[in-house]
Amino acid sequence: MKYLHTMVRVTDVDASLDFYCNKLGLKELRRYDSEQGRFTLIFLAAPGDEEAQIELTHNWDPEEYGEGRNFGHLAYRVDDIYALCQKLMDGGVTINRPPRDGHMAFVRSPDNISIELLQKGDALPPQEPWASMENSGHW
Amino acid sequence: MKYLHTMVRVTDVDASLDFYCNKLGLKELRRYDSEQGRFTLIFLAAPGDEEAQIELTHNWDPEEYGEGRNFGHLAYRVDDIYALCQKLMDGGVTINRPPRDGHMAFVRSPDNISIELLQKGDALPPQEPWASMENSGHW
Repeated sequence: MKYLHTMVRVTDVDASLDFYCNKLGLKELRRYDSEQGRFTLIFLAAPGDEEAQIELTHNWDPEEYGEGRNFGHLAYRVDDIYALCQKLMDGGVTINRPPRDGHMAFVRSPDNISIELLQKGDALPPQEPWASMENSGHW
Repeated sequence: MKYLHTMVRVTDVDASLDFYCNKLGLKELRRYDSEQGRFTLIFLAAPGDEEAQIELTHNWDPEEYGEGRNFGHLAYRVDDIYALCQKLMDGGVTINRPPRDGHMAFVRSPDNISIELLQKGDALPPQEPWASMENSGHW
């Protein structure tokens, strides 16, 4: 299991990069634009400490970021996403976004902090009960 | 500059450790109880990945964690906290918690994400304009 990133949402990419990079001193590692999803992801890290990242999510359509929506989630890479989700579910944790694709899942902490789980390496083959499990709530 | 932790607030330590450790698989690295401040800090990390931490903050007096107060801050260790705060201030960023002690400062991103800066090694000797600069807003 490995920490990957903390995701925060940003309303203005230029203002945010000016803050996080020019002023605070982080550097941009990579960027992903999704025309279909109408969002941009930008991964930042401290120079020389590229393993621990911030993911800036910019949704192209304006959103209000009151009530904590500016904070996104913590992300961990995990060795076996099915085994971990099973353990979480057995412990009474709702799998808000089941790993239908063998790759990604979301759960929430008791205080509603969103946590992303990402399968290490290639996605696992689809497997029940996950493959047919529907989303539950938000994450 | 080095990533240190993401801080999230928790209402119930036992329920939170059950979730983060027993179920999710993190481990507790260290704990700090402040009788005077009436809070407990618990640092967690994925086994074998102890450098990237989550800091759980438990305030002993109950608080409501709606509106995003469950998310705390991102923290970075920095080489020269005075130089960085000067650079931030010159760039128009409010230093919400100035480094009066040569050790710790807080600023906010354009989307109000709280960011903690911690001086590497020993605290720097007190120095103006920081030593006499008052707090501004919340962080």
